[in-house]
Amino acid sequence: MINTINKIKKNIDLLKEYGSPLYIYDYDVLKSRINNISKFKKNLEDKLNNVRVSIHYSSKANNNPNIIKMVKEAGLLVDAMSPLELDLAKKCNFDNNEILYVCNNIDKEEMKIVHDSDILICLDSISQVEMWGELFPNTNIMVRINPGINGVGHNKKVVTSGSDSKFGICEENINKLLEIVNKYNLHLIGIHQHLGSLFLDDKVDDYINGVKESLRIIKDHFKNISIVDLGGGFGVPYKEEEKPLNLTSLSSKLSKILNEFIKEYKSVKEFKFEIGRYIPCEAGIIIGTVNAIKYEKGTYWIGTDIGMNTLLRPSMYNSYHKISLLNQRKTKKVKANVCGNICESGDIIGRERQLTIPKVNDKIIIHNAGAYGYSMSSNYTGRARPAELMLYRDKIKLIRKRETIESMEDDIVW
Amino acid sequence: MINTINKIKKNIDLLKEYGSPLYIYDYDVLKSRINNISKFKKNLEDKLNNVRVSIHYSSKANNNPNIIKMVKEAGLLVDAMSPLELDLAKKCNFDNNEILYVCNNIDKEEMKIVHDSDILICLDSISQVEMWGELFPNTNIMVRINPGINGVGHNKKVVTSGSDSKFGICEENINKLLEIVNKYNLHLIGIHQHLGSLFLDDKVDDYINGVKESLRIIKDHFKNISIVDLGGGFGVPYKEEEKPLNLTSLSSKLSKILNEFIKEYKSVKEFKFEIGRYIPCEAGIIIGTVNAIKYEKGTYWIGTDIGMNTLLRPSMYNSYHKISLLNQRKTKKVKANVCGNICESGDIIGRERQLTIPKVNDKIIIHNAGAYGYSMSSNYTGRARPAELMLYRDKIKLIRKRETIESMEDDIVW
Repeated sequence: MINTINKIKKNIDLLKEYGSPLYIYDYDVLKSRINNISKFKKNLEDKLNNVRVSIHYSSKANNNPNIIKMVKEAGLLVDAMSPLELDLAKKCNFDNNEILYVCNNIDKEEMKIVHDSDILICLDSISQVEMWGELFPNTNIMVRINPGINGVGHNKKVVTSGSDSKFGICEENINKLLEIVNKYNLHLIGIHQHLGSLFLDDKVDDYINGVKESLRIIKDHFKNISIVDLGGGFGVPYKEEEKPLNLTSLSSKLSKILNEFIKEYKSVKEFKFEIGRYIPCEAGIIIGTVNAIKYEKGTYWIGTDIGMNTLLRPSMYNSYHKISLLNQRKTKKVKANVCGNICESGDIIGRERQLTIPKVNDKIIIHNAGAYGYSMSSNYTGRARPAELMLYRDKIKLIRKRETIESMEDDIVW
Repeated sequence: MINTINKIKKNIDLLKEYGSPLYIYDYDVLKSRINNISKFKKNLEDKLNNVRVSIHYSSKANNNPNIIKMVKEAGLLVDAMSPLELDLAKKCNFDNNEILYVCNNIDKEEMKIVHDSDILICLDSISQVEMWGELFPNTNIMVRINPGINGVGHNKKVVTSGSDSKFGICEENINKLLEIVNKYNLHLIGIHQHLGSLFLDDKVDDYINGVKESLRIIKDHFKNISIVDLGGGFGVPYKEEEKPLNLTSLSSKLSKILNEFIKEYKSVKEFKFEIGRYIPCEAGIIIGTVNAIKYEKGTYWIGTDIGMNTLLRPSMYNSYHKISLLNQRKTKKVKANVCGNICESGDIIGRERQLTIPKVNDKIIIHNAGAYGYSMSSNYTGRARPAELMLYRDKIKLIRKRETIESMEDDIVW
């Protein structure tokens, strides 16, 4: 990351050219995370006996095609969960059999798009299986189960299993699912589970237990499943005291239970993982501008142009993002709240951060903004979504244009 | 609202024509809320001695120009808080002196846009006053103070005064403010306060106390102020047991303290109010489609295409929005969770709602979606923002087109 910052320091006019704030992704960091995951895949595959390991990138974390293309070039696969994401995956040259459509509460029209594109679909309720079966009997499907145990996640809003989750089919309803599958002669070739988003080493055992429980459910209830999708949620450190996920240790732990499973369950040909945040998160930063410094009632406030429309996570989930100043002044360090330019009190990026007091017009960096950053951004209070840049070793490429007043008004009928 | 629903029932093909989900605003309801506020303005003005009352519509609640134009036609004024909102206000034919620029942490470029448009600006920190003063000495400004008392609001994320608010200048810093004002020979013509968003009758006294405190601060510290902006936050009932805000009683209570103030403080010529939610909130609904019905672990789930990208408030603030089915079936009433189509657990519109069990493809209505609905919407997980329609007594007008895959990909540089 220091490397990224140094590259940015050499290109300080970027904000003038592309507007402030600005999303910047470091190609080298993206490449390194893709390499890590590719190694994890190979490592795990080597330990398994003729069972393929597939990694699907979840483009909801960051759907910029310049990132999705890197995933494709590395031989990884992709998830899509909307017609736009499907379109982007196709335009990034993924073959049909390299895309998995993982969806929730979609309509018939969307199902037709998936079917007509010859993409494998993962359905997450009996109701959706019935809708699909009526439309497309005798076809392959995957189904998402809810292993019932408590999920893992950085916030309860992203814990996706357990009794309070809208996702998946619980064990007690599997017989009903199988009735519907049989009624339409569907070929249930895969089972999916996903426990939640963002686990690090300290939660790996929870993830492993979830996987174990899912494998038990598969053995107990399903025959001839060839694809087992173990979801994702592979985390990255947001705080300085957190350590990167140890993928070697994760692959060892997984290989043990997966090998046991393979021995008993002969039809399985592929384990899938869905990796969203892990690839782009640490590669992305937001650089913005300090527009005001306040000291009121014992609190320093650093007012920036990075509003909750640009990065929703701190307002939405109370998420921690490291904040630093591009150039530190020789001022004293103080505890400061850092906020954006949106007329809403929740528009706060970070509270009580130890920072040297900046001056107006200094540049400020929000770290780990590569995942669920731009993808959750909006035009709230009429603010444009920023440009996105890719930072290569020797060049910079604009990969998404900043919105303009004209483009934001484009859909209005006057 | 029943009227709105009846009108929609007569036009059930709307979703086929404009896509599901869909934002629909009822012209008559908008008109009635604008009339209420106009009456409040007249009522209050009649009680005050030659002091004007101005109502500024805050377009951040809903910036569709077809709504902003109705505000203009009724003789009300407007707020803007970004260059886009300013552009929309101008295109809706507001004169320069009918627009107030209420902003937070903006940069010099934006200040230039405001100055060059000859719009009055309300600045909310000493730091921003200094930035403005350097650029444009000898000009008129308004300033936002933080009256220091606890604000009011439906969620702490929208309480905008008190010691934990990023907005405004506290009493203890007013001398410092006045130094900067003098340094650049700025003409401080107005003082602004805003306590937070969404109060009903039970919180009116808190609002009144905030106003009192602001007036005291003005008397104690400022001379020759001609504009006093008392903010907004006028609420609407979201729950059936809540009653509409009694504007007659509010105007009586206000007139008492404002008249006392006028007697002592002779320079005041105008009281401003900023009304966002009150005008469009109840006029707007979202109509969407039920795509799945689940019963898992004792919980009914109604899966719809109205995701958190379409309406963020329930996920973001845990806000309550009434939910109803367009056509109730003769099924039993159950407690159901209603959710969207986004792959995130927080994507829930309402919990434990008493609803008759619908069938797939039934239409579902989210009420009170006219404010902070479309304006906070996004493309999260690649979902298009819906179309917006205006429902007149005898016709329907498309007032914003639904996004398409092409329009969502428009800013990408491949």
